[in-house]
Amino acid sequence: MNQIIIFNKDFINHSTVKLQGRRKDHIISILKSKTGDTVRVGLLNGKKGKGTVTGINDLEITLDLDLIENPPPPLSAVLILSLPRPKILKRVLQCASAMGVKRIALIRTWKVDKSYWQSPVLLKKNLEEELILGLEQACDTVMPEVSIHKLFRPFVEDELEGLSAGSRCLVAHPGSKTSCMSGISEKVTLAIGPEAGFIPYEIEMLEKKGFQAVSVGERILRVDQAVPAILGRLFS
Amino acid sequence: MNQIIIFNKDFINHSTVKLQGRRKDHIISILKSKTGDTVRVGLLNGKKGKGTVTGINDLEITLDLDLIENPPPPLSAVLILSLPRPKILKRVLQCASAMGVKRIALIRTWKVDKSYWQSPVLLKKNLEEELILGLEQACDTVMPEVSIHKLFRPFVEDELEGLSAGSRCLVAHPGSKTSCMSGISEKVTLAIGPEAGFIPYEIEMLEKKGFQAVSVGERILRVDQAVPAILGRLFS
Repeated sequence: MNQIIIFNKDFINHSTVKLQGRRKDHIISILKSKTGDTVRVGLLNGKKGKGTVTGINDLEITLDLDLIENPPPPLSAVLILSLPRPKILKRVLQCASAMGVKRIALIRTWKVDKSYWQSPVLLKKNLEEELILGLEQACDTVMPEVSIHKLFRPFVEDELEGLSAGSRCLVAHPGSKTSCMSGISEKVTLAIGPEAGFIPYEIEMLEKKGFQAVSVGERILRVDQAVPAILGRLFS
Repeated sequence: MNQIIIFNKDFINHSTVKLQGRRKDHIISILKSKTGDTVRVGLLNGKKGKGTVTGINDLEITLDLDLIENPPPPLSAVLILSLPRPKILKRVLQCASAMGVKRIALIRTWKVDKSYWQSPVLLKKNLEEELILGLEQACDTVMPEVSIHKLFRPFVEDELEGLSAGSRCLVAHPGSKTSCMSGISEKVTLAIGPEAGFIPYEIEMLEKKGFQAVSVGERILRVDQAVPAILGRLFS
């Protein structure tokens, strides 16, 4: 936690917050802050800056905030992700959030295990918990938006164009002969399939919507490895 | 597990192996293979190819091997990593191994928590277990070499030049004004610090040995996110 995220509900007046639980514990046990010390804070979807500790007790910590900096610029990427298994999804959400992705669509593809859709990670509250870990890590404040699409074809036919408008559209596909580009500066919509890959029909559907299939080499990466590797490669 | 790794000890004659435990379970329960089916296999540090199931029982599975393909080319990268906490180390080892890194040095830096050195993950057997997960994932066979260096200065003064000879030497350092290059084709030695960063003395020591400090932006990534992001960026 390189930065404490502050929520509107934490304020007790215009510049003072009281924190309990995980954030209080982090400030006391990890940062070992005392009254008068400052910690890095960021207001969710707002500015970031310093919080000065003005009170500590067993239950809560009081901070006086001075929020003057803007969060880092977002990554110009929309991530379309075939729903991975819950443990991997958590890591991908944290990582995409830390890298500055602000729009993630979780989609059903043929090779997604049906049981994954039952995971409690998909509850809004739990998705946001993972995304906040990424914001804390990267000292960002802007919550990414995650949407869930349980049917592939209606998603591609009715929603994809709205999501990908004005961007270069890529689908990571190990079978492709086209090598994934690097160091680009335009907006990208990147689709990443399940471990076992998109089926040909899915690739065709995406290609009809303007997606180009690209490969990052013959090594098959797990999705939590592929996401940072491809985002790192695309944007520099 | 996209490929089953075969060890010399598995052979019962020149082309037949018997597998027990995790690999047997994977072939039976996940791949649902039956007698006559083939699975992807790779001989550790050797060729890869197909294994045809010739026998299955509760205790073991028998495969006839046909090993004719070479493993994928390695990544021209030496990774020097400030020892992360054990859970993150496991992920980094899996990821670096999957991406094709063949030489990893785990080093002590000022901000490494001393307790990390006591972790059983550092035992050779356990390190190799994580590295093999990466080889299985990426359908590689060549085991990376990992060395452990519990003193920073002797490592930099006496061992670093041997490791980094003939390569472009980079140290990821969020404070640097130089942006990390991308799409390069030369061999790279990449040093990545702990979450809290290298201290100035460590950066100076590395710079004296020819390392250039480079930044990948203002976002601080966790080391298991930074490794794939930077490797993905460097090599394309």
